[in-house]
Amino acid sequence: MLVDSLNHAQAALNDSLHATNDLMFKTRTELQLTQNSLANSSFKANNIWMMVATAFVFIMHLGFATLESGLTQAKNTTNVLFKNSIVPAIGIMTHALCGFNLMYPGFEFGVSMDFIGFKGWGVELPEGGETFVYNPGMTYWTDFLFQAMFAATAATIVSGAVAERIKLFSFMVFSFFFTAFIYPIIGSWKWGGGWLNTIGFSDFAGSTLVHSVGGWAALAGVILLGPRLGKFNKGVINPIQGHSMTSAVIGTFLLWLGWFGFNGGSVLSAEPGMVSRVLVMTCISGSSGAIAAAFSIFAINKHFDLSMVLNGILAGLVGITAGADQMGIIDATLIGLISGCLVVFAIITFEKIRLDDPVGALSVHLVCGIWGTLAVALFGAKAGAAQFVTQLIGIGSVAVAAFGSSFLILLAIKYTIGLRVGKEEEIYGLDASEHYMEAYPNFMSK
Amino acid sequence: MLVDSLNHAQAALNDSLHATNDLMFKTRTELQLTQNSLANSSFKANNIWMMVATAFVFIMHLGFATLESGLTQAKNTTNVLFKNSIVPAIGIMTHALCGFNLMYPGFEFGVSMDFIGFKGWGVELPEGGETFVYNPGMTYWTDFLFQAMFAATAATIVSGAVAERIKLFSFMVFSFFFTAFIYPIIGSWKWGGGWLNTIGFSDFAGSTLVHSVGGWAALAGVILLGPRLGKFNKGVINPIQGHSMTSAVIGTFLLWLGWFGFNGGSVLSAEPGMVSRVLVMTCISGSSGAIAAAFSIFAINKHFDLSMVLNGILAGLVGITAGADQMGIIDATLIGLISGCLVVFAIITFEKIRLDDPVGALSVHLVCGIWGTLAVALFGAKAGAAQFVTQLIGIGSVAVAAFGSSFLILLAIKYTIGLRVGKEEEIYGLDASEHYMEAYPNFMSK
Amino acid sequence: MLVDSLNHAQAALNDSLHATNDLMFKTRTELQLTQNSLANSSFKANNIWMMVATAFVFIMHLGFATLESGLTQAKNTTNVLFKNSIVPAIGIMTHALCGFNLMYPGFEFGVSMDFIGFKGWGVELPEGGETFVYNPGMTYWTDFLFQAMFAATAATIVSGAVAERIKLFSFMVFSFFFTAFIYPIIGSWKWGGGWLNTIGFSDFAGSTLVHSVGGWAALAGVILLGPRLGKFNKGVINPIQGHSMTSAVIGTFLLWLGWFGFNGGSVLSAEPGMVSRVLVMTCISGSSGAIAAAFSIFAINKHFDLSMVLNGILAGLVGITAGADQMGIIDATLIGLISGCLVVFAIITFEKIRLDDPVGALSVHLVCGIWGTLAVALFGAKAGAAQFVTQLIGIGSVAVAAFGSSFLILLAIKYTIGLRVGKEEEIYGLDASEHYMEAYPNFMSK
Repeated sequence: MLVDSLNHAQAALNDSLHATNDLMFKTRTELQLTQNSLANSSFKANNIWMMVATAFVFIMHLGFATLESGLTQAKNTTNVLFKNSIVPAIGIMTHALCGFNLMYPGFEFGVSMDFIGFKGWGVELPEGGETFVYNPGMTYWTDFLFQAMFAATAATIVSGAVAERIKLFSFMVFSFFFTAFIYPIIGSWKWGGGWLNTIGFSDFAGSTLVHSVGGWAALAGVILLGPRLGKFNKGVINPIQGHSMTSAVIGTFLLWLGWFGFNGGSVLSAEPGMVSRVLVMTCISGSSGAIAAAFSIFAINKHFDLSMVLNGILAGLVGITAGADQMGIIDATLIGLISGCLVVFAIITFEKIRLDDPVGALSVHLVCGIWGTLAVALFGAKAGAAQFVTQLIGIGSVAVAAFGSSFLILLAIKYTIGLRVGKEEEIYGLDASEHYMEAYPNFMSK
Repeated sequence: MLVDSLNHAQAALNDSLHATNDLMFKTRTELQLTQNSLANSSFKANNIWMMVATAFVFIMHLGFATLESGLTQAKNTTNVLFKNSIVPAIGIMTHALCGFNLMYPGFEFGVSMDFIGFKGWGVELPEGGETFVYNPGMTYWTDFLFQAMFAATAATIVSGAVAERIKLFSFMVFSFFFTAFIYPIIGSWKWGGGWLNTIGFSDFAGSTLVHSVGGWAALAGVILLGPRLGKFNKGVINPIQGHSMTSAVIGTFLLWLGWFGFNGGSVLSAEPGMVSRVLVMTCISGSSGAIAAAFSIFAINKHFDLSMVLNGILAGLVGITAGADQMGIIDATLIGLISGCLVVFAIITFEKIRLDDPVGALSVHLVCGIWGTLAVALFGAKAGAAQFVTQLIGIGSVAVAAFGSSFLILLAIKYTIGLRVGKEEEIYGLDASEHYMEAYPNFMSK
Repeated sequence: MLVDSLNHAQAALNDSLHATNDLMFKTRTELQLTQNSLANSSFKANNIWMMVATAFVFIMHLGFATLESGLTQAKNTTNVLFKNSIVPAIGIMTHALCGFNLMYPGFEFGVSMDFIGFKGWGVELPEGGETFVYNPGMTYWTDFLFQAMFAATAATIVSGAVAERIKLFSFMVFSFFFTAFIYPIIGSWKWGGGWLNTIGFSDFAGSTLVHSVGGWAALAGVILLGPRLGKFNKGVINPIQGHSMTSAVIGTFLLWLGWFGFNGGSVLSAEPGMVSRVLVMTCISGSSGAIAAAFSIFAINKHFDLSMVLNGILAGLVGITAGADQMGIIDATLIGLISGCLVVFAIITFEKIRLDDPVGALSVHLVCGIWGTLAVALFGAKAGAAQFVTQLIGIGSVAVAAFGSSFLILLAIKYTIGLRVGKEEEIYGLDASEHYMEAYPNFMSK
């Protein structure tokens, strides 16, 4: 009887344990689902930040449009605005056509010292491309659009340097080749997992891969086009002022806003510590760049030059772009201060050596792009002699590739459809010759 | 004794199982809490995106203000800016007064072929309105504000078409009725769960419900007002140029930025795959619209027309709005290309048939709004003859309702407080007559 | 034998229970990890919103730049733009230098009636500063940057009131002291946990701590500088019109956009119900402010004054800032309507009492800042007589501190490096004297 009751109790225990195990199974299943949902929720948050960053980078195109048009003459404003309006369209479409798949050719690429890879024409949603399986930081679509916005900015850098004298259609043809092939192939060396990545070249958000790539192409254009009429006359440097400092300031601030996405999005997720650190270093460098430029030019000219402050902001932003993920506050301040001095010095120097760059694009994007890339090896977590050599290799190889290929394409354009507008067109303004449309036709009419 | 020890052991087992079960209970409770927190976290992320989208749609009002003022004469700039500054205020306040509750009248509405429903005056936080119980995609407040920003955009579309000749106060009265009643009641047919929703009409973000609603009202205004003085003279079409292409470009790019929120927010959550796909398709269509318009007008005029590129961008954006959730890259490209051609053709045609629309609002919002709505049945996941018929029904019914009601209200205004300013006021400019304030009074003074 | 089998069964049960307990342990460990990840995910979402809010507050600086320059004469535009370009740089750098650590001196501060605390020079990442341990709403870096953007806005408010006559370098020196010391020390009284916080003073996003702090400093500047030449002549008030209503509208809308971050970010997390409610109340008050100002000035002048509508928008936004977290729709509407009337009345009154404030900064930021702070005790959840007294104490003490300290610093500047430009410089314009650079040099040239 005792045994019977023991048996009974044991059976009950058994049943109870079974129930517990069933519940355990159910609990673990639910936990699994919860973990999946959690991964989805984190993915969703990452993707939100990346979409916002994409929108911010997009608005840089309006920044470039207003900055470039503000710093050039009113008679060329429609032309400048046209270029900057069509370039994002060209950049986005070429990135869809082939740029994205040239820049990110895939996993096999990068195991050795690869130079070119291609995943095929067009963009096609891969399996799982809308989930965190593709990338825990963003969907395939966000990835594409963020990168497409970047591609277009590189072409816009060129636009400023060649302004007021390049033929519109020639510029559009160049922009096509530049965004479709030059920018993404060079970019693949690092961001696509190519040979520069293999050797440890460091360029967080593109001081070299975006800004100096654009800057080298701009230099090729400036050399091949020559200076604007009247800029250098019998040994005298004539300032050719812009037409609207209001536009220039709007442009600079929109570019600064855009840098929240440009650098902040280059974390490729919303990882809180890293993204927010990047934003702080970006703003610190832009701010100290402004202050350094303001006082540098004051030391030279004894007055406060607004356009130099704007260039100082942009210089600081470009300068921090390669290492915004590696720096502390002091580093970022120093990088910005040096950028701000550098840009003033560079603008003066380019004028002295007779390179006519209406908006200072070479000084901002090329000079400070190089400086920012070197700064990664001088400040912050990666500082060191070996890194310095690697940075130099990256800078040099990109210089050869970007300048060389841009030079050849522009040369080909020069001897086919022509590169520079006629003398009369330049004097009368490109708005009239290219567009039959002034920028401010009914401004003063009553 | 053995039995005793067995008894003991069994009791210990029992206790141990009890402890396990207690822990299980605790675990499941914690899991439940975790799941709730997770739902909250996902809800929080969704709500962030919707708030950002709301901010982007808000900034479209600055886009409309600068686009419209840029494309009109300086003598009417203060007037244009005034309209565009007061319209968002009117739109937000009328949406709070009754618009939101007309547009989203509630759950009962929509079970049959409903035409009008109303949840009551004012907006009041429902129970759970600040939690995911209301809507897992956003809070009640976000929902209201996102929709309020939409309502105001519809009125702004009208503003451009009637610019440079409508009486300010008359426009404000019309905007009140339009945002308070016409827009939300028509919108409720689809988005509020009304009869158009019941029959399967598809309009993702409002090619019809926003853009062509605004466009039809604009058409009513254009017809009732007649052309600006001097526009059509003895059979000759005189171009009346705007006063600032800089403003027009700022406007267009801000509108493009706004479309990140307009279309991206119309997913009504931050669902990563869907939202990012929508953004890509939006940008692809805007880009291909720009390129198509640039070359269309070049084919006709042999020069690159900046204002047509801007209209091409907007045309592509309006064209993709109805189906941004349904399309692939090729679809979006084609929709954009066709939109870009269409807008050029439409602008020329409206001039030919003597409909004077200073900023091309009819061509962009009405023509491309219709085209985009039809495109849903021609491209992408919903393509099909039956869908085409449904789309036509939607387009036609909205046409009748929006055009008819706007025409009647404007007619009533015409015969009471008057619709059009006097001849002298128009010649001298509305800034003087309506505002005693030029837009650029101290621009040239020293 | 039976006992044997019972023993066996019991051992099996024991093993099974052990297995269950092991699994339970594993499950609970996983749950713990899941909960951590969840906290991270929620933290990530919060931090995203706070970064976006920071970007929106940043763009207010472009808003101030365009608003202030638009409402002043073209001959001073470069100067106005320079001030507004350098101020964010100064504000960010001083906040890094000492401002942040003066404003948020730490936990000990605030237990009694503290007035000043300081955590040390420079900003340094505290342990856990990049995780939710620091603050579940954002990282240390985000916290710093959001607050730095706020600091800079306070200085920009001053800029508008002293425009067209203050020496540039003197303004820069003042901005340094103002953002480095005055703003953060006063701010610490409430937001740093100081004595105003202890007594229950309520100021959600800074109607007093930002707007009226800026406003009081502006008043000190206006008094010490005196009116612009020609403003008040032999008892006659001469309007000195601005140079671009386009700029003014761009500025106002960018400020409104910025307020999405200014108020929306002041929740200090992305808490969905609270943030979205704040955004709605902000927009409702801005909208009703616009409408009230439009009709107030119409009642007086019989025409619709665009600049008053812009001031009405800003007045409504400032007015709701102190209580955006406490109000319902009706409250926000009333606060906005009163703000809109108040700003019109204040602008007229300041002119009558011969205080020359070129952009209406005193009326918008000081008057409506005070009004908004009082409104917390008149409307919404905290309304009450005791709260009204506390609000008055806060307003009064901040008035004494902000006005007094600003007055002393400006006075010191006046008697050292000088405060106001010479008569000729003012007449010819500060662009010429301070910058040798017109804002629109090649605007009309062909």
